[in-house]
Amino acid sequence: MPQFDANLRTRIDGRRARLEDELTGSVIPFWMKNAPDREHGGWFNCLDRDGAVWDTRKHIWLQGRAVWMLSKLYADLEARPEFLTQAKSGAHFLRDKCKRKDRRVWFAVARDGKPVQLQRKIFSECFYVMAMAQYARVSGEAWAAREAKEVFGWIMEAIADPRLTGRVREEGEVPSQGLAVPMIVLNLIQELDGGFQGEHAAQARECAAAARRFVRRERKVVLETIAADGSDLDTPEGRLLNPGHAIEMGWFLLDYARAVGDAAAAQDALDAIEWSLDRGWDPVHGGLYYFLDEQGYSPVQLEWSMKLWWPHCEALVACAKAYEYTRDRAWFERWVRVSDWTFGRFPDSAHGEWFGYLDRQGAVSQRFKGGPYKGFFHVPRALLYTAQALKSALDPKPVTAPKSH
Amino acid sequence: MPQFDANLRTRIDGRRARLEDELTGSVIPFWMKNAPDREHGGWFNCLDRDGAVWDTRKHIWLQGRAVWMLSKLYADLEARPEFLTQAKSGAHFLRDKCKRKDRRVWFAVARDGKPVQLQRKIFSECFYVMAMAQYARVSGEAWAAREAKEVFGWIMEAIADPRLTGRVREEGEVPSQGLAVPMIVLNLIQELDGGFQGEHAAQARECAAAARRFVRRERKVVLETIAADGSDLDTPEGRLLNPGHAIEMGWFLLDYARAVGDAAAAQDALDAIEWSLDRGWDPVHGGLYYFLDEQGYSPVQLEWSMKLWWPHCEALVACAKAYEYTRDRAWFERWVRVSDWTFGRFPDSAHGEWFGYLDRQGAVSQRFKGGPYKGFFHVPRALLYTAQALKSALDPKPVTAPKSH
Repeated sequence: MPQFDANLRTRIDGRRARLEDELTGSVIPFWMKNAPDREHGGWFNCLDRDGAVWDTRKHIWLQGRAVWMLSKLYADLEARPEFLTQAKSGAHFLRDKCKRKDRRVWFAVARDGKPVQLQRKIFSECFYVMAMAQYARVSGEAWAAREAKEVFGWIMEAIADPRLTGRVREEGEVPSQGLAVPMIVLNLIQELDGGFQGEHAAQARECAAAARRFVRRERKVVLETIAADGSDLDTPEGRLLNPGHAIEMGWFLLDYARAVGDAAAAQDALDAIEWSLDRGWDPVHGGLYYFLDEQGYSPVQLEWSMKLWWPHCEALVACAKAYEYTRDRAWFERWVRVSDWTFGRFPDSAHGEWFGYLDRQGAVSQRFKGGPYKGFFHVPRALLYTAQALKSALDPKPVTAPKSH
Repeated sequence: MPQFDANLRTRIDGRRARLEDELTGSVIPFWMKNAPDREHGGWFNCLDRDGAVWDTRKHIWLQGRAVWMLSKLYADLEARPEFLTQAKSGAHFLRDKCKRKDRRVWFAVARDGKPVQLQRKIFSECFYVMAMAQYARVSGEAWAAREAKEVFGWIMEAIADPRLTGRVREEGEVPSQGLAVPMIVLNLIQELDGGFQGEHAAQARECAAAARRFVRRERKVVLETIAADGSDLDTPEGRLLNPGHAIEMGWFLLDYARAVGDAAAAQDALDAIEWSLDRGWDPVHGGLYYFLDEQGYSPVQLEWSMKLWWPHCEALVACAKAYEYTRDRAWFERWVRVSDWTFGRFPDSAHGEWFGYLDRQGAVSQRFKGGPYKGFFHVPRALLYTAQALKSALDPKPVTAPKSH
């Protein structure tokens, strides 16, 4: 009996081709044309609908992510010299202008690299590490690998002692932990070690366990913030659901589970994705809500009902990877549902790239293509990873089933 | 020739009665029933649609504003003992739990007063001063007047040297000034001195002049942020319009201009209100946008197109005061337009009080009545001040026209 009927194979192939067209014909050209700052190095990340720069400041989350993405495309899509040239320009700008002597990384700098803002968070540093690790791999430049390692060291110190970020914990604050931290560290380890069984394997195992503590199996939800002791917090933070984030955690964890052969972790990952897709999907207008309150209160985030590009990007990747892993056709159909809604609304066929911010009804709310939190990252990563997963799903399924740990 | 036809007088009287009914029959009862914390003192400010507490933390902006409002109602509406009792409970909670030895005031505390968060801003301190000044006036308690004066001293020091708030200005930041600072100081001086011709008269004159520097007469806009030297900033901050804030500035400035007899300042105030109403009004769905970009870019604020309660409250007060001052019927008709849109959407006849956050179309986006930024303040202040202005507008117009300075 064939694993696929010819019809399904044709559907998957057609969808995959559409992803690759969008990546190489719309998204990559938009950024390669408009983003490079040929005078000061690095990339402009605040680009209007047509690519015009609407703010010359550079936001380091996006600088780092662009360097990572360019390096990844060079490695995985095509060894185009301009991918490497632009990654190099960004990596040097990051090293020379965005990092401080104390290993901290600015959140925003002026066009010429003069510092503008530091966050009391660890994420600028995380995207710096992500950039340097991947750039080191494709360029062979050892300094970049050293940079990645050095700043990763600071991140681990700051997780152990958040005062290093400048944050003070006041007496009346309830000690808590956020999903973002184990997720991003798991992702950084994958970048640093090129997998989960290298130098930081023990830390990866801890991160995966920590991320799984946010999964509430009995209620079929993934929480965003829990108490320091792992229990529920009856506060707006403790009730907060961020479906896109939970779905992203799902595919990070699935990658991990597959690599180390942990079937229980893989099941948590699949459930996290399925529950968050079900819970997060707007039954009236479609698309994923940005935030929800588990108990039905109104989230304090004014933008809770907006449809953002990145949760939809994460859902595309997650469903495709879940399908690749399980070969369960229900996952492909989930992927189709997300894909149809997403491709019907986010891409801008007139100027290329995707809009980032739609209102609840699905109309464009913000016309810009790049801003302080949107750059050359979620869309190309989703298109690349989803196309890879669909391609792999057409291959015969590997014989070895993952072991349970 | 009579100043009013009987028909207009009847319309105004009917509208005024509606405002008073809403204040005494819906808004005040909602808060008096649900907000008091009879165990720890002060008020819960995070109240759900039906008055249930959804977060027990107390946010000092709202604690201070509630104490001010209760004291104001006691002075201006009715000397109900419970207004004074509740104001006293809040004032003691503020003094004993919310203020630090260094004169700084927390942004949020736990229910019992343990500190949760400090902002690198001056506004918690401002609402502390507002509360204490007005509470001192109605209670006769001298310690409250001393508190107001002491924290006002810190505010003036922190405006001169923002490092006192903990903020660091980085090398790449463009030096700028925000409209909020002269506005709120002008308002505080009115509270401290009971007018604009007392101890801080010279400072009030400076604040009014500073606020007027944000008015761009040639472009008919009021900016939110300008360069330190008063010029335009070509950045998202420099292009930002906040119509509700500009309208609030308009009536603060009109109060000042009338008190000191400055006709040029009054004209700036009236123009600021009229331009911001015109520019800020959504031509499709009605209501005031939260943010706009002067040059038509998309604002970075995701919530830019939402309709919030407070800009509409400020517009009610501003149009009513402009009508009272000018006796120009066009202002009354503007007031009617704002009032019809506002009363048609924000009040909750089922549980009392107003919703705070509507989407662009005017549907309720957040169901809660109180949150970290909404409490017992804008709605009752608007109802009280608007009713007062409409009542006064029915009196014969004062003979003395303001002098130009």
